[in-house]
Amino acid sequence: MANSIGKILTITSFGESHGRLVGIVIDGCPAGLPVTEADIQKELDRRKPGASAASTARAEEDRAEILSGIFNGHTTGAPICLVVWNKDVKSGDYDKTKKLLRPGHADFTSYVKYGGFGDYRGGGRFSGRITAGWVMAGAVAHKLLDTIGVEIVAHSIEIGGITARSMDFNTIRQNADANPLHCADKEAAAKMLAAIETAAGEGDSLGGIIEGIAAGLPAGLGEPVFDNLDGEMAKALFAIPAVKGVEFGAGFGAARMKGTQNNDPFIIKDGEIATASNNAGGVLGGISNGMPLVVRVAVKPTPSISQKQQTVDIENMTEADIKIEGRHDVCIVPRAVVVVEAMMAIVLCDFALRAGLIPGVIK
Amino acid sequence: MANSIGKILTITSFGESHGRLVGIVIDGCPAGLPVTEADIQKELDRRKPGASAASTARAEEDRAEILSGIFNGHTTGAPICLVVWNKDVKSGDYDKTKKLLRPGHADFTSYVKYGGFGDYRGGGRFSGRITAGWVMAGAVAHKLLDTIGVEIVAHSIEIGGITARSMDFNTIRQNADANPLHCADKEAAAKMLAAIETAAGEGDSLGGIIEGIAAGLPAGLGEPVFDNLDGEMAKALFAIPAVKGVEFGAGFGAARMKGTQNNDPFIIKDGEIATASNNAGGVLGGISNGMPLVVRVAVKPTPSISQKQQTVDIENMTEADIKIEGRHDVCIVPRAVVVVEAMMAIVLCDFALRAGLIPGVIK
Amino acid sequence: MANSIGKILTITSFGESHGRLVGIVIDGCPAGLPVTEADIQKELDRRKPGASAASTARAEEDRAEILSGIFNGHTTGAPICLVVWNKDVKSGDYDKTKKLLRPGHADFTSYVKYGGFGDYRGGGRFSGRITAGWVMAGAVAHKLLDTIGVEIVAHSIEIGGITARSMDFNTIRQNADANPLHCADKEAAAKMLAAIETAAGEGDSLGGIIEGIAAGLPAGLGEPVFDNLDGEMAKALFAIPAVKGVEFGAGFGAARMKGTQNNDPFIIKDGEIATASNNAGGVLGGISNGMPLVVRVAVKPTPSISQKQQTVDIENMTEADIKIEGRHDVCIVPRAVVVVEAMMAIVLCDFALRAGLIPGVIK
Amino acid sequence: MANSIGKILTITSFGESHGRLVGIVIDGCPAGLPVTEADIQKELDRRKPGASAASTARAEEDRAEILSGIFNGHTTGAPICLVVWNKDVKSGDYDKTKKLLRPGHADFTSYVKYGGFGDYRGGGRFSGRITAGWVMAGAVAHKLLDTIGVEIVAHSIEIGGITARSMDFNTIRQNADANPLHCADKEAAAKMLAAIETAAGEGDSLGGIIEGIAAGLPAGLGEPVFDNLDGEMAKALFAIPAVKGVEFGAGFGAARMKGTQNNDPFIIKDGEIATASNNAGGVLGGISNGMPLVVRVAVKPTPSISQKQQTVDIENMTEADIKIEGRHDVCIVPRAVVVVEAMMAIVLCDFALRAGLIPGVIK
Repeated sequence: MANSIGKILTITSFGESHGRLVGIVIDGCPAGLPVTEADIQKELDRRKPGASAASTARAEEDRAEILSGIFNGHTTGAPICLVVWNKDVKSGDYDKTKKLLRPGHADFTSYVKYGGFGDYRGGGRFSGRITAGWVMAGAVAHKLLDTIGVEIVAHSIEIGGITARSMDFNTIRQNADANPLHCADKEAAAKMLAAIETAAGEGDSLGGIIEGIAAGLPAGLGEPVFDNLDGEMAKALFAIPAVKGVEFGAGFGAARMKGTQNNDPFIIKDGEIATASNNAGGVLGGISNGMPLVVRVAVKPTPSISQKQQTVDIENMTEADIKIEGRHDVCIVPRAVVVVEAMMAIVLCDFALRAGLIPGVIK
Repeated sequence: MANSIGKILTITSFGESHGRLVGIVIDGCPAGLPVTEADIQKELDRRKPGASAASTARAEEDRAEILSGIFNGHTTGAPICLVVWNKDVKSGDYDKTKKLLRPGHADFTSYVKYGGFGDYRGGGRFSGRITAGWVMAGAVAHKLLDTIGVEIVAHSIEIGGITARSMDFNTIRQNADANPLHCADKEAAAKMLAAIETAAGEGDSLGGIIEGIAAGLPAGLGEPVFDNLDGEMAKALFAIPAVKGVEFGAGFGAARMKGTQNNDPFIIKDGEIATASNNAGGVLGGISNGMPLVVRVAVKPTPSISQKQQTVDIENMTEADIKIEGRHDVCIVPRAVVVVEAMMAIVLCDFALRAGLIPGVIK
Repeated sequence: MANSIGKILTITSFGESHGRLVGIVIDGCPAGLPVTEADIQKELDRRKPGASAASTARAEEDRAEILSGIFNGHTTGAPICLVVWNKDVKSGDYDKTKKLLRPGHADFTSYVKYGGFGDYRGGGRFSGRITAGWVMAGAVAHKLLDTIGVEIVAHSIEIGGITARSMDFNTIRQNADANPLHCADKEAAAKMLAAIETAAGEGDSLGGIIEGIAAGLPAGLGEPVFDNLDGEMAKALFAIPAVKGVEFGAGFGAARMKGTQNNDPFIIKDGEIATASNNAGGVLGGISNGMPLVVRVAVKPTPSISQKQQTVDIENMTEADIKIEGRHDVCIVPRAVVVVEAMMAIVLCDFALRAGLIPGVIK
Repeated sequence: MANSIGKILTITSFGESHGRLVGIVIDGCPAGLPVTEADIQKELDRRKPGASAASTARAEEDRAEILSGIFNGHTTGAPICLVVWNKDVKSGDYDKTKKLLRPGHADFTSYVKYGGFGDYRGGGRFSGRITAGWVMAGAVAHKLLDTIGVEIVAHSIEIGGITARSMDFNTIRQNADANPLHCADKEAAAKMLAAIETAAGEGDSLGGIIEGIAAGLPAGLGEPVFDNLDGEMAKALFAIPAVKGVEFGAGFGAARMKGTQNNDPFIIKDGEIATASNNAGGVLGGISNGMPLVVRVAVKPTPSISQKQQTVDIENMTEADIKIEGRHDVCIVPRAVVVVEAMMAIVLCDFALRAGLIPGVIK
């Protein structure tokens, strides 16, 4: 079940970049949740290439289709199958370089694992495109979380070394979608865009950092010791292609703090227990503590660059050069923002269901 | 199965810090592997408090006991139960502060999740002590990995802001165990120890960063898209108390690199495909690529500090001060090094078994 | 993951009787297996209604479609999605009796579990139609088992109280598909067909017993103590709608035997260890013993009958009569034969993969 | 995780017949349930050998010990480890016949699977003795089910071909424990005992049938299509050594009924929906329907008999005779009754937790 994740709410991913479709089966969703294709489409559209320079020119308009599990506008408790059909596929681009391993891509590891039988077109199963299915599942998860007042916002906090300034949650949620980079800091966004355009001109690519925040999360979610909230969340986020690091709260910065600095003092706020700071990022002992869950993911620069690179011709076992053609995002951070939100929503739903916070039938 | 991890090689953790014992059940270990209590003890001893200032004074000598699954000196294919009995337990220390939530600890989240029924003594189930069980399981996993030539070394690369210099794998493996901090850089280790002693004098604590390296790992391990090598490894590492971040290869640094810098060129070395650099940290597309697996984990400073802290009295729902007494590691990084190795070994064994690299019977 | 089964080879079922489609996702299938839509179609056709009296008149011709996971005629190692679209759907038949619970069906239990949101048309998710997906997955599993010489044959051994005579495996495999009842005993098949026609005339229905045999199975498959071969097989077979009992080898008959009668003496045959009899049905201690695996499943009479029945109107909470209209198999045993084969194949593949008998890449 | 069963309430079995101990880890048990060693001991005692002729003379008095997960008399939410230490072990009995495969036992299959490394003493991991751990877990599960009013009673309904007469649930629950055979029909029990004594005199053994009933079970438990109530229950029951068949309600008898006979009419009883008969055995579409769950398991005659049997010497690969010595139950049906109850309780708890019927903290 390597292509499934989640214990009670489970998603199973299928499809390839240049195959017939990309899809997802959601199992364990409570019955009675109102879901329409428009709900799904809305999230899918947020993942669309936006900033001209940042994203691929793939013209295809992804249309979400519900194939099962929804009846009379509501979930039935049966598995929900959602798909987008691939339309704008130019596989010829890839056949030429098939035997040349693209640096930074999964061509080599896929070749070793699947004995050369893998679908190499556009990265096949390793393409970022398969996250379209996850985003569709995320749309359902977001609706489920709505029923218990949990809201998730992710945003770009760093691209090409340019960092957004720190903001409060409300400012972030209001501004994160205001530009195609999903960066809540308008000034930083402008600089990031310029950096992306420069990189594009150089045939290079950029990475960055995404921060995801879940607000309204009740204390008590997480299943120690191994199915803890941070561990399951990290696993889900590392599934996103190009993610190389995950940290919660103060994260790697906590390694440089003293206990007196890093410990979040407990206080009473509005009659509830809270913490004065949130270096923990909302999770203690693998369980949510009622503070916002804060996670950051490091995204590597897009491996597909148009500059010539050194590689190996796997058929002839000779060293060779490769020049990757075709359309590629210079920086996938902006599009990955929506995927981070989706994976966070899916994991949090799973925990909310495990904790019995969301009932088996939504009324 | 929140206290189990692994798909084919599964470990199930049980026990508490101040209960009768700490233990582990290992399921799915192939038959025929020679295992003695001495093998287990050896790893357990490496986790012992070593640097006087860095570690607790808990006098107890942990003795590994095999309760099942080993017969005539070999694994039988049946579940292996390993335990250490708790002896030197001073639970009175904890009863006094039972109602005061310790900042940075799981007292509050445990209280919410388990309704106050949790064993609060010494952190109970949330104590670092339960990792003794994981280290015992790791000892078996290391022996399994030996059969396929995989070697794992972890070491402290940063403590209290002091960083070790970069070294090659052989230097690290030769020097990492030469001092109680498990820091391969002797000079840095001396400074780290001084920093720990200073923090101890101030009633404060320190965090740091551990790097784990798996050498000899064949290409092809990992199960995309959700059970990928990095995701499963990250989940296992986030189970270690105090871990707040996990990154592979260039990690968060990759977010600041360009594609031309971050992509590892493929080369042919000794007739095999390799990469000229290892920014990927040995994993591409969730699958090992034959290069050393390199992972780093951020460890927060020990939350137990002897300075007075602000907190909440959960019985009376009033704000209060807490002063934690008893014995505590000023910095758990050195002891966590052995736990990182153990979790890495367990995860890699699981993948090697899933890939059929380790047979069902060891001969 | 209630709609998934299998640990290494996992199938995930989706779709409804009168929704858009019925489908399956197969995860964990090794790469390199040649699979065509014709391979899938062949098994699907065997499940088609055959004997006029025994089966429904649903005219729809099911066409298997491969949506993912197959590339250039071979499996890629990625999830394989297979579907059949529903075409000949007369949902109006069901709206009329929607509020009347059909005795012997899941209408009531579905209503309780899913709060009335379930798709009630044609039994929705509880319809035998969803086994079309399982049969498609079974087609792939049969091909995988071919690579290690395992052959599975199921046949009707009892319908309406009429029993087929005992035969050897070769006779069964040659004759089981010779008539639409999948009964290898021609004379018994004729009587069964007559019984079915009589029951049809009376507006009644019949049950029966199916026997499944797996030949060529190597010794050593099965994972005691809980994932044993018989337990996993039984679970998979109880998923087939209408199955009320599962037994292996002498089964319930063994309860009436003495140890001297039931124990299968070990012998040496062709230089291999075998047993002189097969009361164990090929499984000892939850592990295959190299003898043919023999399992029998009890199938209840089709609950949809055209006679008037007593029931409850769930909207008005009043007792009421129900007369079920529409098309229904008088006896589903013949069609379930193919489903039994499919589920056996899926479970045995999973165990063969767990045992490393089938490699990760088929060459 | 072959030695684990259950999704939310998971038990992990370890230990061997002649090793140091037999144990169980229960994960996922809600916090706050009062549990004492006496609660566990009570169930363990019911599994003790009782009828002199029926059971082994193993003198050992099993003492349940709680090793973790219980604090101040209540479950903590942490894994509960329960063990019984083996004391009265005469392993010498087994060494003599080590190379001779005992017919009807797992000696051969274990040998194949574990390459001869298995603990052969007393059946090792395949011994009925390991069910002592399951019975201890069952004791906890029974207490959990008490909180929602579910009661489970199993009883011997057939031994050596002698059948108990049919009785109502209250009569069964009052009389089932009145004799060591756990047969509610006193007259039948006397005949069964005589049959057992006769078989004992002949050096032979007997099988039988156990019926398990769960009363008070609410409608709505079960997770179709694969994790359904009957399938999961069957899997759990097939784990009990010597079980060769499992059926629900009318079971194999349903195969011989017509739809008009087998369908249970829906009625309204005390304002609730019920069925007039219970051929379904309390489960429809894999979900409980509020009627008593009725399951029957076929138990084969004890394979250990004192008569001479034909077998193979696996070291020399020659045919040979074997005469099994040592103490053995002539009929394990009476002792398996308690194990059936335990496994039923464990499975039902798991489903009750999945359905949110039992909360995360018991108050």
